[in-house]
Amino acid sequence: MSIIGVGLLGGSIGLAAKSLAKPWRVVGYGHRRSTLQRALETGAIDEAADDLGTSVRKADLVILATPVGLFEEMLRGIADYLPSSAVVTDVGSTKRSVVALAEKTLPKGVAFVGSHPMAGSEKRGVEYARTDLCAGAICILTPNSKTSPSALADVEGFWESLGMRPARLTPEDHDRLLADISHLPHALAASLVAMQSEEALPLAGKGFLDTTRIAGGDGGLWRDILLDNRDNLLASIKRLKENLDRVAGMLKPGQADALAAWLNESAARREELVRQKLREINPD
Amino acid sequence: MSIIGVGLLGGSIGLAAKSLAKPWRVVGYGHRRSTLQRALETGAIDEAADDLGTSVRKADLVILATPVGLFEEMLRGIADYLPSSAVVTDVGSTKRSVVALAEKTLPKGVAFVGSHPMAGSEKRGVEYARTDLCAGAICILTPNSKTSPSALADVEGFWESLGMRPARLTPEDHDRLLADISHLPHALAASLVAMQSEEALPLAGKGFLDTTRIAGGDGGLWRDILLDNRDNLLASIKRLKENLDRVAGMLKPGQADALAAWLNESAARREELVRQKLREINPD
Repeated sequence: MSIIGVGLLGGSIGLAAKSLAKPWRVVGYGHRRSTLQRALETGAIDEAADDLGTSVRKADLVILATPVGLFEEMLRGIADYLPSSAVVTDVGSTKRSVVALAEKTLPKGVAFVGSHPMAGSEKRGVEYARTDLCAGAICILTPNSKTSPSALADVEGFWESLGMRPARLTPEDHDRLLADISHLPHALAASLVAMQSEEALPLAGKGFLDTTRIAGGDGGLWRDILLDNRDNLLASIKRLKENLDRVAGMLKPGQADALAAWLNESAARREELVRQKLREINPD
Repeated sequence: MSIIGVGLLGGSIGLAAKSLAKPWRVVGYGHRRSTLQRALETGAIDEAADDLGTSVRKADLVILATPVGLFEEMLRGIADYLPSSAVVTDVGSTKRSVVALAEKTLPKGVAFVGSHPMAGSEKRGVEYARTDLCAGAICILTPNSKTSPSALADVEGFWESLGMRPARLTPEDHDRLLADISHLPHALAASLVAMQSEEALPLAGKGFLDTTRIAGGDGGLWRDILLDNRDNLLASIKRLKENLDRVAGMLKPGQADALAAWLNESAARREELVRQKLREINPD
């Protein structure tokens, strides 16, 4: 298999794929020689390729793991070198654009299946890669009417072999739901940090640090995601602002009971979500 | 000393005060007998009082540790029973109202010093109390022109003896800054949970759970805080909405560099804050 882009996630996928009972042989592509060198040293890849074409020439499975903004360049770069039996997938956090790009760019016969393994951290770089980064996390696959069922099964089976829990959504549903549950929280965390005065910041407690943890992510990576999902994110921002207006409307003594009930409802909803997540990880 | 309200924070203060080299004798007041019983069993208090007046009759230091919404009732209830040498403080998350109430309600000679120990968790109840809950956390004291300097020094010394790092702000500055760094993040976390569809929630990753952790807090407690700091919170909501409008304005290809720079600036600002917090806890 070939991993295009061996950062935190690409490197972790390499480590996990190489640690299976039947280990994959992993070729890694990166545009920086130093990154490839670190990926070799940490055992995330077996072979380093600094030429994009040659990196996929013998690949059965190709995983695009660069930032979303580089996908077009990568797909164009590999299109002429892929074996006709190859299956291509990706790890991008948005799916409509990459699925459309792959359909337009890849040669007939090469199957593409969109994937979004929901694993990662605010850290970046192959030096933080971990064999178990993906284990237990959800991986959303985004087939559409043009997706090969056998390629879908192969890619789903691959993520399952890394311990991921697969889910399926259309690319459109994926981008709409992820705007609410992931892209908006990121924009919000960054806004919450940005709006603080120099006087207020030193008073931050553990709660503030947790609430804003995801704002520590790489700006270039998140710029690509937020821009690519612009329409959905704008709708999510609008809905959040409406929710904040609702809170503001409850900040009156006469609305005290409604405010407490609303706060308790959110607390209960989150608690149920945590319980569900724990059940998924430990079914027994 | 007397602790009025032996929940998570009151109980933890009791445990810590009793574990000092020169331990305090702690009288606890609560309106539920079962809570007082648990507080006795866990060693958070030496003596349980279910009568508010008698609970403070011999106290040198009284700590109000009930929800903010009960402070008025508690201050009225202790006013006639306090020794004239007593110093009263509190642990409330808002400070203008409690300082004003104490000035109005307590008899001449009894000194009041507003405190806000920034320790706690989304858990509640004396069963979660921990001797080290306060250690390392900031405690904001809110003296004004009427505050006795010696009482201020006593209360500050008490929090320091529990390992807290004291800071001083006027009640007005406290409430203004806390609206931004604590009350708004809470309202935001609750809003973020509330706005999710049933389809989106199962896709929540670790980032979403961290971002919304504080929304797990008790609704009644937070209702009191948010209502009491209404004016500042409305201003904070307004400023956050302006920041979200700024993000929306950057969701254009032509603004890609500005968006990445803004995201990186927030990431760097948060990282510096984390470094500063670590330095405060481990100065060496």
